Amino acid sequence: MALEIVSRHGCFGGTVTYYRHASSATGTLMRFSAFVPANVQNAPLLWFLSGLTCTEDNFTVKGGAYRQAAALGLVIVAPDTSPRGADVPDDPAYDFGQGAGFYINATQAPWATHFQMERYIAQELPQVVAAELPVDMRRQGLFGHSMGGHGALTLALKYPQQFTSISAFAPIAAPTQVPWGRKAFTSYLGSDEAAWQDHDACVLMRRSGDRRAMPAILLDQGADDPFLHEQLRPELFEAACAAVGQGLILRRQAGYDHGYFFVSTFIDDHLRHHAAILGGQS
Amino acid sequence: MALEIVSRHGCFGGTVTYYRHASSATGTLMRFSAFVPANVQNAPLLWFLSGLTCTEDNFTVKGGAYRQAAALGLVIVAPDTSPRGADVPDDPAYDFGQGAGFYINATQAPWATHFQMERYIAQELPQVVAAELPVDMRRQGLFGHSMGGHGALTLALKYPQQFTSISAFAPIAAPTQVPWGRKAFTSYLGSDEAAWQDHDACVLMRRSGDRRAMPAILLDQGADDPFLHEQLRPELFEAACAAVGQGLILRRQAGYDHGYFFVSTFIDDHLRHHAAILGGQS
Repeated sequence: MALEIVSRHGCFGGTVTYYRHASSATGTLMRFSAFVPANVQNAPLLWFLSGLTCTEDNFTVKGGAYRQAAALGLVIVAPDTSPRGADVPDDPAYDFGQGAGFYINATQAPWATHFQMERYIAQELPQVVAAELPVDMRRQGLFGHSMGGHGALTLALKYPQQFTSISAFAPIAAPTQVPWGRKAFTSYLGSDEAAWQDHDACVLMRRSGDRRAMPAILLDQGADDPFLHEQLRPELFEAACAAVGQGLILRRQAGYDHGYFFVSTFIDDHLRHHAAILGGQS
Repeated sequence: MALEIVSRHGCFGGTVTYYRHASSATGTLMRFSAFVPANVQNAPLLWFLSGLTCTEDNFTVKGGAYRQAAALGLVIVAPDTSPRGADVPDDPAYDFGQGAGFYINATQAPWATHFQMERYIAQELPQVVAAELPVDMRRQGLFGHSMGGHGALTLALKYPQQFTSISAFAPIAAPTQVPWGRKAFTSYLGSDEAAWQDHDACVLMRRSGDRRAMPAILLDQGADDPFLHEQLRPELFEAACAAVGQGLILRRQAGYDHGYFFVSTFIDDHLRHHAAILGGQS
């Protein structure tokens, strides 16, 4: 688990660092990026999970997050979306295999050997980050985009003691009901749909009991997103939140599609949302 | 010269559009991006010229410019850095050929046929843009990064009636005296160095006469830029400006390297610099 610095760059007074380390969860070298503002100690830690086809680099260079993160004193860690390498199984499609780990632990061969992204993100990587970065692990927030929005919503619901603030951009909000999720879950988890239910944000939300005391979730969705109706289905997550009293700020943004121009337009709102819940640096 | 929209994306209330058109200057299809804020008419037009290896996409997705451009009402156009295509000569090195047009008109075979980037940027593309976008062509600013910083400084000095406000990030400020420039000019312009002088910002500045009445040029340079001493040489441009009374705000930024994390950190300052000279939208 020795951590190697791939590169470090000055950015808004702080630094962006790309790291690489051998992961015991995935059995591969994994990469992530970290933005650390200048002069922070015990800073809130915000995790960003990326979408299909992305690496740790996409959000880091396209998200436009670090100006506001510097102002708010937030550390942001952006992991890769799957194990990678010549020894790792893959699929020619963009929506499955490498670049498409779905933030779950695969149970089916040949995927189960390396595709242990839930364990990596929720358990192993936090230990790596806590040992390396000036963060307060009692104040962790989680957000993500598309497949990473699915990851953010589900991991926040699975690990409520760990992640306090939650938001998402255009998440795959009901993966058991849409083609992207059904394809991935069939191969990673097997064809028994009962095993899928633990990894669907709508199911997890409905199971979670009265959530009136929980901080509201912020969800931005482009109204012109070509994946909205077939793959994302935020209205199902909206209904699940309503059923258990979970506060949800669902904003349907007219004129926006699925890409990083959309994400970057609203990123400052998300950072302020998390900072308001997690508090500033202490 | 018919203009084709490749894609359009909502961004900070306005739009980012990628365009493609057949260029008579280069004899190829050329691409550029344009950010247009919401509800602007006769807006100031700011040109961003990118560096070695870049396309029209790099600044567009990594520059972090559009939040502030939207606030200031600036249109920003980012062209590609060279002609491209299977029929266009190329070189295996990253610093010459496709992706490395140097914003000059090549005079030597086989480059002269397509590598007419000065004509493309200063003459053809402005006509295309004026016909398509809600801009005031009397208010044009020019900035760029690295090779594109060289392009911005030299084209602004060659076409002073066209470009009113000037800035640069880590420009190749004295190309006739550094390896990147000498290599490119030898092949594009021939081995007679007399022909190179018209394309060196330091030479052009010293030739330009008393510039005390001109707006100051803003130049940001990372102090940790690995190319600083061998390829960029801002101190030579600083001396040239001093020799003719040109105002220059040269900021040596400690802790910053040559990449877009550096550019994005200071982009807002550059946009405000241009807006202050060009005025807001009318």
